[in-house]
Amino acid sequence: MFVKNAWYCAGWDYSVTLARDAILARQIAGERVVLFRTPDGKVHAFEDRCPHRQAALSMGRKEGDTLRCMYHGLRFATDGRCVEVPARDRIPERARVRVFPVVERDSWIWVWMGDPEQADESLIPFAVGPGAEGWNIWTSEMSVNANYRLEIINLADLGHLTWVHENTVGGSLKYAAIEPDFELLPRGLITRYWVRSVEATGAVRHLFPAGTLFDLHFEITHTIPCTWVMHFRIFTAGAATEGDSDGTLLVDTWTSQAVTPRHADAVDYYYSWGTSKETDIPGLSDMLGQTLDIAFREDAVILEAQHERWREKPDFPMVDLPFDEGPAKMLWVLDRLLREEAGKPDR
Amino acid sequence: MFVKNAWYCAGWDYSVTLARDAILARQIAGERVVLFRTPDGKVHAFEDRCPHRQAALSMGRKEGDTLRCMYHGLRFATDGRCVEVPARDRIPERARVRVFPVVERDSWIWVWMGDPEQADESLIPFAVGPGAEGWNIWTSEMSVNANYRLEIINLADLGHLTWVHENTVGGSLKYAAIEPDFELLPRGLITRYWVRSVEATGAVRHLFPAGTLFDLHFEITHTIPCTWVMHFRIFTAGAATEGDSDGTLLVDTWTSQAVTPRHADAVDYYYSWGTSKETDIPGLSDMLGQTLDIAFREDAVILEAQHERWREKPDFPMVDLPFDEGPAKMLWVLDRLLREEAGKPDR
Amino acid sequence: MFVKNAWYCAGWDYSVTLARDAILARQIAGERVVLFRTPDGKVHAFEDRCPHRQAALSMGRKEGDTLRCMYHGLRFATDGRCVEVPARDRIPERARVRVFPVVERDSWIWVWMGDPEQADESLIPFAVGPGAEGWNIWTSEMSVNANYRLEIINLADLGHLTWVHENTVGGSLKYAAIEPDFELLPRGLITRYWVRSVEATGAVRHLFPAGTLFDLHFEITHTIPCTWVMHFRIFTAGAATEGDSDGTLLVDTWTSQAVTPRHADAVDYYYSWGTSKETDIPGLSDMLGQTLDIAFREDAVILEAQHERWREKPDFPMVDLPFDEGPAKMLWVLDRLLREEAGKPDR
Repeated sequence: MFVKNAWYCAGWDYSVTLARDAILARQIAGERVVLFRTPDGKVHAFEDRCPHRQAALSMGRKEGDTLRCMYHGLRFATDGRCVEVPARDRIPERARVRVFPVVERDSWIWVWMGDPEQADESLIPFAVGPGAEGWNIWTSEMSVNANYRLEIINLADLGHLTWVHENTVGGSLKYAAIEPDFELLPRGLITRYWVRSVEATGAVRHLFPAGTLFDLHFEITHTIPCTWVMHFRIFTAGAATEGDSDGTLLVDTWTSQAVTPRHADAVDYYYSWGTSKETDIPGLSDMLGQTLDIAFREDAVILEAQHERWREKPDFPMVDLPFDEGPAKMLWVLDRLLREEAGKPDR
Repeated sequence: MFVKNAWYCAGWDYSVTLARDAILARQIAGERVVLFRTPDGKVHAFEDRCPHRQAALSMGRKEGDTLRCMYHGLRFATDGRCVEVPARDRIPERARVRVFPVVERDSWIWVWMGDPEQADESLIPFAVGPGAEGWNIWTSEMSVNANYRLEIINLADLGHLTWVHENTVGGSLKYAAIEPDFELLPRGLITRYWVRSVEATGAVRHLFPAGTLFDLHFEITHTIPCTWVMHFRIFTAGAATEGDSDGTLLVDTWTSQAVTPRHADAVDYYYSWGTSKETDIPGLSDMLGQTLDIAFREDAVILEAQHERWREKPDFPMVDLPFDEGPAKMLWVLDRLLREEAGKPDR
Repeated sequence: MFVKNAWYCAGWDYSVTLARDAILARQIAGERVVLFRTPDGKVHAFEDRCPHRQAALSMGRKEGDTLRCMYHGLRFATDGRCVEVPARDRIPERARVRVFPVVERDSWIWVWMGDPEQADESLIPFAVGPGAEGWNIWTSEMSVNANYRLEIINLADLGHLTWVHENTVGGSLKYAAIEPDFELLPRGLITRYWVRSVEATGAVRHLFPAGTLFDLHFEITHTIPCTWVMHFRIFTAGAATEGDSDGTLLVDTWTSQAVTPRHADAVDYYYSWGTSKETDIPGLSDMLGQTLDIAFREDAVILEAQHERWREKPDFPMVDLPFDEGPAKMLWVLDRLLREEAGKPDR
């Protein structure tokens, strides 16, 4: 159901600090995870389940470098070992909580859900976080009650921009006509395309004289499971119909998006958008961000209704369309990784 | 579980127009159905599931004679064929949405949930709708979280009028004593009986001097699945103890009721009540209607608690009583139709 | 899953009278139960399920010594026999509702959920109710969404007092160090221990000068399923380190607690606490009671999170600690009783 040997985004770095008692509970790929920061600033991730009697460690208490379960007071070091059984000398060897490898990068927290021995930091996707030099990046998040496969399909598919996001980040028939360049990666897909001489998207069309046209360039790196990072640039419409636009670069943006399955029926969605400082103008990054919040609610209502229907008829015969090429490649990568892990023993 | 080759009521004709974007989503007998009207005024019913990726067509958009899925913009004609894949020439032959036969009659919309070839309009039950000449008919609807078998039993059973509807549409022990005439139909049951020299029902008893008595005549046509249409007449109490009342006709009414299962655990209930224009007096039809809304909530709380218990103990041994003769006949008809369809392949 | 041949607490005696229409609906050990009082003051318990069509008898009406089902008006005597089928002469022999033996004692209502022939009043646990002479007892109740095994473990375990109830009824590390005396009973366990020279518990520590110490004595009788009755006494700290305290008795209290499973995922919890009239001071019993309400919410949030995790991973390998000795004994008793009943036919 889920690829285990993979980095999953557990959210924005500030969420760990802002959580109640600075202890953050998540569900990731079907597992309960608790995240907390030690005084040295490092983030640690435990299974959110005390090895004694399955109490929630996320209801515990940080004490120095350790986390105390507040049911019976067992205290765990960052390597998962129990270092205190209150008022008792003997600590059973088996009193160990499962520890997940954690990396903080680009203001995101990444958790490796599989075999810690295989945790490979080079697999962490590139992203542009709010701390990136030269960029003004706005961050947000939401939850969607849908399986993550539907999110992967949605993100890999360009055809829906025309319709779902008619009034926000899409709206032109030109999106449905895109024939992108694909570059398959071991764990994902790079998708590149131009949309030329197109009107501004719905959200900002009213800001320009009628008929003002733009050249748009998209370069998207989509990885399993599930990160979607796009370099998106807006030019004045030029004359070129192939290769680079000969218009003027107006806005240079990055958006970084991570979809983390909680379990089979819901995902957490962490995302950012922002412009280069050179091309930013006051209010622009905020407006992009607010537009994205609305656009992703547009997707969410579609995906949640689709998820219900997909649960009702898992074997419904479906019809393939040209828009499904990107999604098909991504699902092929996902299913290959799932197959590779199947048969291997679980931790 | 559900008879497929049957007409199910999808609600009042005005609901299609009043729905958001004039597109109405229903669940009928376990299927998702979307209803919309084309410019010629006709109502059409599709499976509420795009053949591409199961998106909800009820979140779509009406465009002329067609319905557009607002996920990827596929557009469907009223025969279910896809007539547009945006920005693409080729339309896959298999891109067809399932179409359900629809008939509008008596202000109700009827949908045939089985094989369209077998859709037989002569099976649509007789009813008296709000447009019927000579009648003032009031309409309403509600939902009940109970299996439709419990609704069929409830409607076929006269014994509960005495107790459940003590303060609304029943209240006399005479209801529990009824020995009706039954006439079995291929898909239902006609039930006829007199209740003589009875006080007014609970809701209106206070309007008459104490001891004022009436003769009541009931003629009910109950069909599978599940319509209940009653011609109900109130006379001053006469001397006759057999055959027609020799009292004076005071009020002549029709009530038409349709119970449509959403799925195994809920129904939608559409109903009307009203008097002949000749016997109506200002406020009477409104009062009957409001009484019915209250009476059906009285049933609903009983049925929802019964449904919970029936789910907990499906094999609970039950005891039969004289009141169960009507319900037993109706369930016999239902189960015969279900058996007849079993073994036949589903569409 | 549940021991059937056992007395389950159905709540406080006053709840039957205060319920809507003085008819109380409960779920006990997976069964629906309805409780009502006849004019002679006796409480009766029926299965909350009419033998006719499973309607809820708890939606019925008390009439003298009988309970009428308000669906079709069947009326049942306290022995479960149907004594009226409205407007009909014949009463089917099988029209009998299941009757559960009931005993009122110590202001609690006890219901025997198994074979009535085996109902043995001597198995009803000792308790100190609000009517006990010489005691001022305060009563309360709550519901918890957790399996009753987790409640049994929680109540048999002394180690959690230190942490879960840090600010209410625990808080000292001395609780985690307790090595109690156990006395195994056929259906439970007596647990006795002293906690000596300990500060007042969290809730009342601020009332005493810093460093004021007490000797506490606990004697708990815990029975399956699931009653927990404690004689708890507070002395000024004395010099004795074994046997009785040589301090002065300050407060002498009893708390009686009953946990009744509704079904596999929830319990009702009825409890009381109070002091002897000799050692009571104005406001003390109220304060103890309010403290207990807060303390049991502290348990409830832990248990509900634990229950979710236990449902997710029923086979999670757990680690045993010294605190688990009491819980292990209680689960051993419970599982022995369950095994003894397994194989015997259900009623």
